[in-house]
Amino acid sequence: MFENYFSQRIKNTPSSFIREILKVTQKPEIISFAGGLPNPISFPQEELKISMNRIADNFGAKIYQYSTTMGLDSLRQFIVDRYKRIWGMDITVDNVIITTGSQQALDLIGKVFINDGDKVLVEKPSYLGLLQAFCMYRADFVQSKLNDDGLDIEDLKNNIKTYKPKLAYLIPNFQNPTGLTYTAENRKKVFEVIKDENLILIQDDPYGELRFEDGERIPYIGLNESEKNIYLGSFSKIVTPGMRLGYIIANKEIIKMIETAKQASDLHSNIFGQYLISDYLHNNDLDKHIEKIKKLYKSQASAMVGAMEEYFPKTVKFTHPKGGMFTWVTIQEGKSVTDLFDKAIAKKVAFVPGHPFYVNPQNVNTLRLNYTNADEETIKIGIQRLAQALTEV
Amino acid sequence: MFENYFSQRIKNTPSSFIREILKVTQKPEIISFAGGLPNPISFPQEELKISMNRIADNFGAKIYQYSTTMGLDSLRQFIVDRYKRIWGMDITVDNVIITTGSQQALDLIGKVFINDGDKVLVEKPSYLGLLQAFCMYRADFVQSKLNDDGLDIEDLKNNIKTYKPKLAYLIPNFQNPTGLTYTAENRKKVFEVIKDENLILIQDDPYGELRFEDGERIPYIGLNESEKNIYLGSFSKIVTPGMRLGYIIANKEIIKMIETAKQASDLHSNIFGQYLISDYLHNNDLDKHIEKIKKLYKSQASAMVGAMEEYFPKTVKFTHPKGGMFTWVTIQEGKSVTDLFDKAIAKKVAFVPGHPFYVNPQNVNTLRLNYTNADEETIKIGIQRLAQALTEV
Repeated sequence: MFENYFSQRIKNTPSSFIREILKVTQKPEIISFAGGLPNPISFPQEELKISMNRIADNFGAKIYQYSTTMGLDSLRQFIVDRYKRIWGMDITVDNVIITTGSQQALDLIGKVFINDGDKVLVEKPSYLGLLQAFCMYRADFVQSKLNDDGLDIEDLKNNIKTYKPKLAYLIPNFQNPTGLTYTAENRKKVFEVIKDENLILIQDDPYGELRFEDGERIPYIGLNESEKNIYLGSFSKIVTPGMRLGYIIANKEIIKMIETAKQASDLHSNIFGQYLISDYLHNNDLDKHIEKIKKLYKSQASAMVGAMEEYFPKTVKFTHPKGGMFTWVTIQEGKSVTDLFDKAIAKKVAFVPGHPFYVNPQNVNTLRLNYTNADEETIKIGIQRLAQALTEV
Repeated sequence: MFENYFSQRIKNTPSSFIREILKVTQKPEIISFAGGLPNPISFPQEELKISMNRIADNFGAKIYQYSTTMGLDSLRQFIVDRYKRIWGMDITVDNVIITTGSQQALDLIGKVFINDGDKVLVEKPSYLGLLQAFCMYRADFVQSKLNDDGLDIEDLKNNIKTYKPKLAYLIPNFQNPTGLTYTAENRKKVFEVIKDENLILIQDDPYGELRFEDGERIPYIGLNESEKNIYLGSFSKIVTPGMRLGYIIANKEIIKMIETAKQASDLHSNIFGQYLISDYLHNNDLDKHIEKIKKLYKSQASAMVGAMEEYFPKTVKFTHPKGGMFTWVTIQEGKSVTDLFDKAIAKKVAFVPGHPFYVNPQNVNTLRLNYTNADEETIKIGIQRLAQALTEV
């Protein structure tokens, strides 16, 4: 009835494939590797309860009143201090704006930068939430191949040369959906290719803190060498996603424009949540809390990879994540992952078929598995079921 | 440095005049009628503290986990029940989506309906947050005159005929910025004019519950007579704005599109806040709480109107609000409200000049005063200062 009223942008947005899938996979008898939820162990519930009572006592009406678009100073200062300490960034609170989750960061960046048809370079496959967000601003996507060590440099060079993208969106650490991490060497090569281009580079990093193997953090692409770098971060995977709190770090001129866009989008993010997270962070040891999450995810990832090695047909490939929440499975070319999905559901195990992570999904033979929301025994049973489905396609 | 990267939409968005003003007006020696903050008395702090502990005990990890884009069922059900009871609306939770404040409702509606250059009819003057939000989607605004009893019907007819707007955005109760309320008769006339047009009517109603004079609620325009009506509501003025929780009530087909737009915008609104407000609403008497707010605002409004009657030059006109948070002042034509602003600041009193409420501000001789955030004595002193400034221009 309203077809003629809706905007072109909304009509062109892919229907949420994943939400449809999640409906099927929510039946209790199904073992689901389809979601992307952090394990509830990552929520420091007791400490947050102490913090909420403390902010109610200490700040009174302020935690309930309208607040500034940029976000709470003490929370922004925490971010500044952390990024200075870890990455040596030369930033102040003026380089940081709080967003309603990282998803809003993507929406605001789309609003601030994208004109109809502007070219945006993304990984192949890429985070579906980014594709949805930028689709609303009618971006024209260019997908660059991912290899085990990061972006395919030749493909990247060709894309840059051919399409002259205005923005690039990359997830260098424990990428969603593949679980891959760019090597230090690959990052240097990527920066060599892009540094003299008129290109804004967005590095989204919700999982970077969750490295459970292979030691140290790897510096961002062009870290401290480019004013055209935008960094996204989030408290969703290390404290709580329910508060919807993320942030953008960028040049002040960019942050000022994003502030204007945010004012028009939601005035400001939930200020109670900002006081709560800030109080939690200033009164607890975040790194110690993260260790607990990493220990759990390491054993879950290892259970999944171990089971895949044991039960999957040898023609099936999969990534070995060193952090984050996902692994990415590639079945034989020519086989249909949609058929596999139907067979898997019949065997009571679910995953996300690769389609929504591609701009133009064709002959998709990939799928995403999440390991953070099932115990090791359940993971093993689920992978056995999936292995049976795999032998049938 | 980034001028060439920014989108046309953000470059065309008016810089936030009001934020610049608020910087000047935040000095402690200034009596400010410029803001739009609810009085902290409207936050039921003790009850919210009880609720936050209760939801932490009752729901555990759920209050911190990712949640659905549509919003918490129990909160949506509360809204359904209330609108059924008060307005006899025939709706279910499928007609209601929770938004990150009403500001996000405006952003999402813009996303879902507006193509570049689509005509949108708004009041003259209109809410500046709407102008900003829709400006991002490059709406072409048509402003329709407001009289003391509501929209000027002849002007409305002409605008509808000439511009064929796709959307209309109205605030029928205690409008921001004017404080005016459409009479029941005016609402009927407005509906007669628009009902057979291809026009979606958005009625934003953040202040409707705050009627402190003249008895009963007046039904919405076309209430229960049009599938093309969209209703906006908010908990900001009756419980807390800091949680950023508002909602949209509309036809299911529209809500479904808004859900897609919201998923791309912030996945979902803060779920902790939704549990908190829902628990508060289900365990307390909202209407009794609202009575307390109305009593306070009535005395504050009456102090302001009384002082304006006593001290303002007779050439100055102003509205007599029967609810809400604002009054609207019109000085003699030809006088500059910008000059007045400078003189007022010199006398240590602040207001918002009318400019940001117009699409094409020219020779502006109007200004907005807020009365909810100062006590009666302070209001009287502030109005005396403003009266002195008025005699000088």
